[in-house]
Amino acid sequence: MRVLIKNGIVVNADGQARQDVLIESGHIRQVAPVINPDLPCETIDAEGCYVMPGGIDVHTHFNIDVGIARSCDDFFTGTRAAACGGTTTIIDHMGFGPAGCRLRHQLEVYHGYAAHKAVIDYSFHGVIQHINHAILDEIPMMVEEGISSFKLYLTYQFKLNDDEVLQALRRLNDAGALTTVHPENDAAIARKRAGFIASGKTAPIYHALSRPLECEAEAIARMINLAHLSGNAPLYIVHLSNGLGLDYLRLARAQHQPVWVETCPQYLLLDERSYEAEDALKFILSPPLRNVREQDKLWCGIADGAVDVVATDHCAFSLEQRQRLSGGDFSRCPNGLPGVENRMLLLFSHGVMSGRISPSRFVALTSATPAKLFGLWPHKGQIAPGADGDIVIIDPRRTTVIRHENLHDNADYSPWEGMTCQGEIRQTLSRGNTVFRDGKFTGSPGQGRYLRRKPFKHPAP
Amino acid sequence: MRVLIKNGIVVNADGQARQDVLIESGHIRQVAPVINPDLPCETIDAEGCYVMPGGIDVHTHFNIDVGIARSCDDFFTGTRAAACGGTTTIIDHMGFGPAGCRLRHQLEVYHGYAAHKAVIDYSFHGVIQHINHAILDEIPMMVEEGISSFKLYLTYQFKLNDDEVLQALRRLNDAGALTTVHPENDAAIARKRAGFIASGKTAPIYHALSRPLECEAEAIARMINLAHLSGNAPLYIVHLSNGLGLDYLRLARAQHQPVWVETCPQYLLLDERSYEAEDALKFILSPPLRNVREQDKLWCGIADGAVDVVATDHCAFSLEQRQRLSGGDFSRCPNGLPGVENRMLLLFSHGVMSGRISPSRFVALTSATPAKLFGLWPHKGQIAPGADGDIVIIDPRRTTVIRHENLHDNADYSPWEGMTCQGEIRQTLSRGNTVFRDGKFTGSPGQGRYLRRKPFKHPAP
Amino acid sequence: MRVLIKNGIVVNADGQARQDVLIESGHIRQVAPVINPDLPCETIDAEGCYVMPGGIDVHTHFNIDVGIARSCDDFFTGTRAAACGGTTTIIDHMGFGPAGCRLRHQLEVYHGYAAHKAVIDYSFHGVIQHINHAILDEIPMMVEEGISSFKLYLTYQFKLNDDEVLQALRRLNDAGALTTVHPENDAAIARKRAGFIASGKTAPIYHALSRPLECEAEAIARMINLAHLSGNAPLYIVHLSNGLGLDYLRLARAQHQPVWVETCPQYLLLDERSYEAEDALKFILSPPLRNVREQDKLWCGIADGAVDVVATDHCAFSLEQRQRLSGGDFSRCPNGLPGVENRMLLLFSHGVMSGRISPSRFVALTSATPAKLFGLWPHKGQIAPGADGDIVIIDPRRTTVIRHENLHDNADYSPWEGMTCQGEIRQTLSRGNTVFRDGKFTGSPGQGRYLRRKPFKHPAP
Amino acid sequence: MRVLIKNGIVVNADGQARQDVLIESGHIRQVAPVINPDLPCETIDAEGCYVMPGGIDVHTHFNIDVGIARSCDDFFTGTRAAACGGTTTIIDHMGFGPAGCRLRHQLEVYHGYAAHKAVIDYSFHGVIQHINHAILDEIPMMVEEGISSFKLYLTYQFKLNDDEVLQALRRLNDAGALTTVHPENDAAIARKRAGFIASGKTAPIYHALSRPLECEAEAIARMINLAHLSGNAPLYIVHLSNGLGLDYLRLARAQHQPVWVETCPQYLLLDERSYEAEDALKFILSPPLRNVREQDKLWCGIADGAVDVVATDHCAFSLEQRQRLSGGDFSRCPNGLPGVENRMLLLFSHGVMSGRISPSRFVALTSATPAKLFGLWPHKGQIAPGADGDIVIIDPRRTTVIRHENLHDNADYSPWEGMTCQGEIRQTLSRGNTVFRDGKFTGSPGQGRYLRRKPFKHPAP
Repeated sequence: MRVLIKNGIVVNADGQARQDVLIESGHIRQVAPVINPDLPCETIDAEGCYVMPGGIDVHTHFNIDVGIARSCDDFFTGTRAAACGGTTTIIDHMGFGPAGCRLRHQLEVYHGYAAHKAVIDYSFHGVIQHINHAILDEIPMMVEEGISSFKLYLTYQFKLNDDEVLQALRRLNDAGALTTVHPENDAAIARKRAGFIASGKTAPIYHALSRPLECEAEAIARMINLAHLSGNAPLYIVHLSNGLGLDYLRLARAQHQPVWVETCPQYLLLDERSYEAEDALKFILSPPLRNVREQDKLWCGIADGAVDVVATDHCAFSLEQRQRLSGGDFSRCPNGLPGVENRMLLLFSHGVMSGRISPSRFVALTSATPAKLFGLWPHKGQIAPGADGDIVIIDPRRTTVIRHENLHDNADYSPWEGMTCQGEIRQTLSRGNTVFRDGKFTGSPGQGRYLRRKPFKHPAP
Repeated sequence: MRVLIKNGIVVNADGQARQDVLIESGHIRQVAPVINPDLPCETIDAEGCYVMPGGIDVHTHFNIDVGIARSCDDFFTGTRAAACGGTTTIIDHMGFGPAGCRLRHQLEVYHGYAAHKAVIDYSFHGVIQHINHAILDEIPMMVEEGISSFKLYLTYQFKLNDDEVLQALRRLNDAGALTTVHPENDAAIARKRAGFIASGKTAPIYHALSRPLECEAEAIARMINLAHLSGNAPLYIVHLSNGLGLDYLRLARAQHQPVWVETCPQYLLLDERSYEAEDALKFILSPPLRNVREQDKLWCGIADGAVDVVATDHCAFSLEQRQRLSGGDFSRCPNGLPGVENRMLLLFSHGVMSGRISPSRFVALTSATPAKLFGLWPHKGQIAPGADGDIVIIDPRRTTVIRHENLHDNADYSPWEGMTCQGEIRQTLSRGNTVFRDGKFTGSPGQGRYLRRKPFKHPAP
Repeated sequence: MRVLIKNGIVVNADGQARQDVLIESGHIRQVAPVINPDLPCETIDAEGCYVMPGGIDVHTHFNIDVGIARSCDDFFTGTRAAACGGTTTIIDHMGFGPAGCRLRHQLEVYHGYAAHKAVIDYSFHGVIQHINHAILDEIPMMVEEGISSFKLYLTYQFKLNDDEVLQALRRLNDAGALTTVHPENDAAIARKRAGFIASGKTAPIYHALSRPLECEAEAIARMINLAHLSGNAPLYIVHLSNGLGLDYLRLARAQHQPVWVETCPQYLLLDERSYEAEDALKFILSPPLRNVREQDKLWCGIADGAVDVVATDHCAFSLEQRQRLSGGDFSRCPNGLPGVENRMLLLFSHGVMSGRISPSRFVALTSATPAKLFGLWPHKGQIAPGADGDIVIIDPRRTTVIRHENLHDNADYSPWEGMTCQGEIRQTLSRGNTVFRDGKFTGSPGQGRYLRRKPFKHPAP
Repeated sequence: MRVLIKNGIVVNADGQARQDVLIESGHIRQVAPVINPDLPCETIDAEGCYVMPGGIDVHTHFNIDVGIARSCDDFFTGTRAAACGGTTTIIDHMGFGPAGCRLRHQLEVYHGYAAHKAVIDYSFHGVIQHINHAILDEIPMMVEEGISSFKLYLTYQFKLNDDEVLQALRRLNDAGALTTVHPENDAAIARKRAGFIASGKTAPIYHALSRPLECEAEAIARMINLAHLSGNAPLYIVHLSNGLGLDYLRLARAQHQPVWVETCPQYLLLDERSYEAEDALKFILSPPLRNVREQDKLWCGIADGAVDVVATDHCAFSLEQRQRLSGGDFSRCPNGLPGVENRMLLLFSHGVMSGRISPSRFVALTSATPAKLFGLWPHKGQIAPGADGDIVIIDPRRTTVIRHENLHDNADYSPWEGMTCQGEIRQTLSRGNTVFRDGKFTGSPGQGRYLRRKPFKHPAP
């Protein structure tokens, strides 16, 4: 199978140029100003379009069971939606297993979830639910299996305390794994949440009020310093929603500490006014939406390089589920937002087309940096000979109005309903196979492969 | 004449509360939770509305002659528009007089422009066109006349060089006047501009490309340091359009230097994509519109206190004038945007209603700080007994779609056409007289008084 | 008793001028360019000298029992040393009482310690050893007794966890008390310390290596955010030793959060090379000495206003005690440094005389700001009619070489031995009484009074 | 000729290790943990010492004629002193030629100065005295001759205005040359200076008062922005003396602008109190010495990476010359300080030994970064096979007291007289030849070679 993409503007994290791209047997074979193939091949005319590395979404939660509910997207519907949005790789954060379970347990569960379902390539992040010798000793085996990043939680049922975090950071670093963290101060949230519930304040806005941004910022500063104290272990902050946390990260980076941070489109484009709307349940997630002031600060970070990655934290529960389970009470509503299909276009429109960032920086944020941090580079994250034929073609001249009826996930709403984006996802190729074209999903379940990721290595600056 | 405003939320720069406000003979007489007047008075029910000090727009250019054209708004249409937008005081930047003219010359000209025209109270900023002993010696007389602020230009015909700026800063400071400055590096602009014109690049986008933000930032840093070198003279930067200049100002302020800065709604809400549109001539002004990245930075400054004032730089030329004079060539198009009527609502909607700033900070930006910096406090800029009865009532529950057909200036377009704002200007009172209510102008020319401003005094932090 | 100080340069936090000062009955009665008293009075000629408010040292530990040892200075020797160094008020941090004891218990103990001993005026900070309803309910009574500030520990035996800190912050704030905190991350220190001890690394340098600056910085960020989450409770960080913590505080202050910070001369002038010296035990304190890089950052904060207070954390254990108890093992050496007598001159020499800060800023750091934060203003912290006659006279033309043999504490060494300072403490007056003159202590025990401090009030900026 | 340096700690900008170093025919041939040479060679035992790349001092002024005087060091005494201080390469800033002279003129003059004199390798920076087509057209030829950096002056006789600076920046950038600049605002200095002279204030302290740090900071911000406006031309700021200028550079670098900055030991270790001393004439240089506060800020920049290079600006006039020419009047005293021999040890002692910077960062500041910026890498600036055998051996265990009688320049004083440094320069090798050992100069004039430098290339971060 040979595919030739002609006449587009090929964009990588380090620059862009008018180039043709030839893909053969799933791999990029040639990138050159003009390619005239000697063998027959399918040709795509990308005149006037950007030809970019397919998106890598390093934060999804497919099939996740959060106790009160199971996410409505599995690895088929989830990766189908991803593909239709221009994303060609996902790394899913494995959910919690039974208390006390081994690391391998969840890995097996997740291989089961994904194996015959995934439409695009995938991998998993591990999760450290508790600390003991057995768990710590299991880490190197997991890294060998390709799980070179793990998540710690500072809140929720399986939160770790400072001493446990120190142990985890050191062992993960020793084993070549990157520590990622959900940073929120549990004690402060618990106290506020209990206070609201006790006084009957359970409307959605109290979800936001029970976890102010300082809960998150505190936990970020704590993790930065604990990582430094653990042999300067590399650290990756997920789903940043506020500017103070970003300022803490800037300080760490100014001291050359190896820290990275991800934000999500919802924190860039939605705000806490949503919690006052009638459909507020649609927006329950943690950390919660903040106000526009925090958006401004995050956008500054997107533009000046302080933010490294944009992912989605796609964790879909239908509005029906939310309403049924919660009865309108935030404390009984499952947390999470769908969005895996919208990330690329939202950032393209509000980032590139608004003049905030260059197309190259867009690629860095959506695929090149994720690939480097999570052991997928150089096969993923760039358009270069030898890399996988994972490509998205975006037409900047067209506009897209987001409508859930046009999306491919399994939820019953989109938080972006009605939003107009400048640009259109025209086509997505996964290892050379077109999985989405002109509004239609063209892939099939099981096409995606498990990616055995390499151990963490500090990317050159 | 007695007016009682009942049931509103009275907002000052230092806080807000449910209060009634009684105005008598043009002055605020009482502010209290409940006022039951013993004498008859007109009553305004402000239930659910914010009752705020009338706006002070310290940057307008009415009647201005820029050589190739005269502004289409005079002191009647200009102040009428201001009043209808909730602004009750303007301070107009006097334009240039004939080369070599005395300071008094322009003051007389402007008194003539405003005297029987102005609908609301007004004052003028002086302008230093050239430096010699006579001009410097004239400054104290001007301050006595109430002109306690002057503008210097670093570009255009009457630009001053470093040595002249040093002389001006010192003498203005000695005389109790605040130095304001239009900061753009003339040499860099001249070189770029000449280059574009020479190669026939005269489309509107070249206006922006001929004066990049570094031209402005350079001049800001220069002025900051020259002011410090001139006995730490107080300095006020007008129409800031970029984040780098703001960063320079932050550094100065961190060293406790007396500097202040104004931005305008166009730099917060419009961006350089406008220069690619068909009606691009509508947006020719200096400094030019920047990209959204600069907007983000300016909004951060609005929110964190780095920006002190929002004014308009209202300087209206009709689209007809623009097209006729320029034939589409940016270098022949008069510079300036209308907007005096839109400032209050735009900032209310995108600042307060979006959660970026509090109502009190809104008041600080639009009236309290301008009043303090420009010698109008305590009579203007607050709702307190003894202050002038200048008030705007804003209803946050209503929305307004900006249409030029509903505006009251003399231009033939609005740069904000079609923009939806959360909030509505319900009523404006100028010294107790209602000059605007429910969409209708109700004032009359000549009602406004010249404000003899006090010498500059550093406002308490 | 009347005292007239003539011809000196009187310095307050807001400026300085050549003035005479008349003290009567312990209070300042008049400050004027020339005072010719009508009644006889003792006259002090301060020609060429600075006449400044007596120092307020808000961080001492007299009589403290740290379990393995009792401090070698009590309220007599400690305040005598203070007086001889130009300090006229101390606020002592009460030590821990028996586990579970009431707040009142320690207050009574400390009243007993100080009553007939103190040479200068004094007060105490409370300490929260544990959290329960009884303790929280006792706080308002303590504030009424004049104890309007309390200390929390995040390490050592009586450390509080996040939930307890949240409770303390809220109740202290409600009661009008300022929360002060010893910020170090306990888990990280415990882990490092145990590791060193287990491998026999007990030389003094391992004291520093077991509590890196990130332990402190982490705890500072945590406290800043927990304070914000507790109704924006005011917060005071004691004995800051590093620049990263200061940067966190700068960020908080940029958001207008009510936070203040104290550093000590040892963190400005000594560094961790001391731990490699033969007499390294002399320098065991927590947080430990850092490297010169942190000094540079702290000095920047002294100069630019980010640091609010310089205190001493005077907690003297003789070298004999240190050696005997520890046998050279850092983990068995009592922590703390003497220094109450050296603070004023060290900061005067290295701050004022080096050109880093003005004399006024010196007064702010050493007396005015401490007085405002800890409820002693306006009686302490300034030279103004009505204030107490607490004064230090410093001669900037003379030099002083620090020798322990000339000091007045009860230790057997000085960490500053041999250091040359530009300036000399010439005379100290406590409520008009000369307690030190020309190298001689002239006060007597019991002269000092307990200061019932006012509730915390945010000082105007 | 073969030299083996054994047992030392070899330091490069990217790390350090115990290594032996073998030099053959002037080049480094091998660097390995243990080298047992098969051929006979001179062996140096560097046990306990640092073995580092020889210093590169990119800012000297030998033989310079400043109109009122000629520097007392020529290329022999100057490079001899350099060699004895551990410096093995200098790049001299060529002085001004006759008004209107061609670029080639000065190059020929300087080749004449250096040819048979220099003890170590050398190159020159060009200087742009005026702008016209002929000069601009000459630049590429100069770059071909190895002159890949030029200096502009913003003050003094041959200052350039903004338009000239813009032209120079663009043409230098086009030609592959790095623009360096002496940044001081001429108008502000001229005004202050004239004022002091007119009122008879000519004592040395008025030198400092006539050129406050804001003069320098202004010019730095101007150059940063003009460089950005000139196609983002690379820019190198010489002899930074203040923190505000450094903050401006930090902002530029945060936006990824190619700017670099050099400071000098005198700005790190001497302060303006020197101008009050009896021998104040010794310290007249421009920019002048600042206060300790600025030192603190520069040290922070040294430590955190904001400062790139430490050079000397060695420009020696004897005290005898200074006194004779000036009669004590600062305005008639030639400007400049000796110091080429002291740079390495001063920074080693106060930087490395104080714990502010690592040995690797020391190498970056003193040789590796200068080599990269000025076209000498990889032959200079590192200890690696193939590089020149330029090496300095420093013993950290010994102390050195600076005495002019032990120095090797031609001045009659040292600004560092009496200062104690931790460390001692033990030996210097220039292309394998020992030019200094154990306090004795062992080189000979003419040994040094002209270095034809490569065009400027942005060093990888």
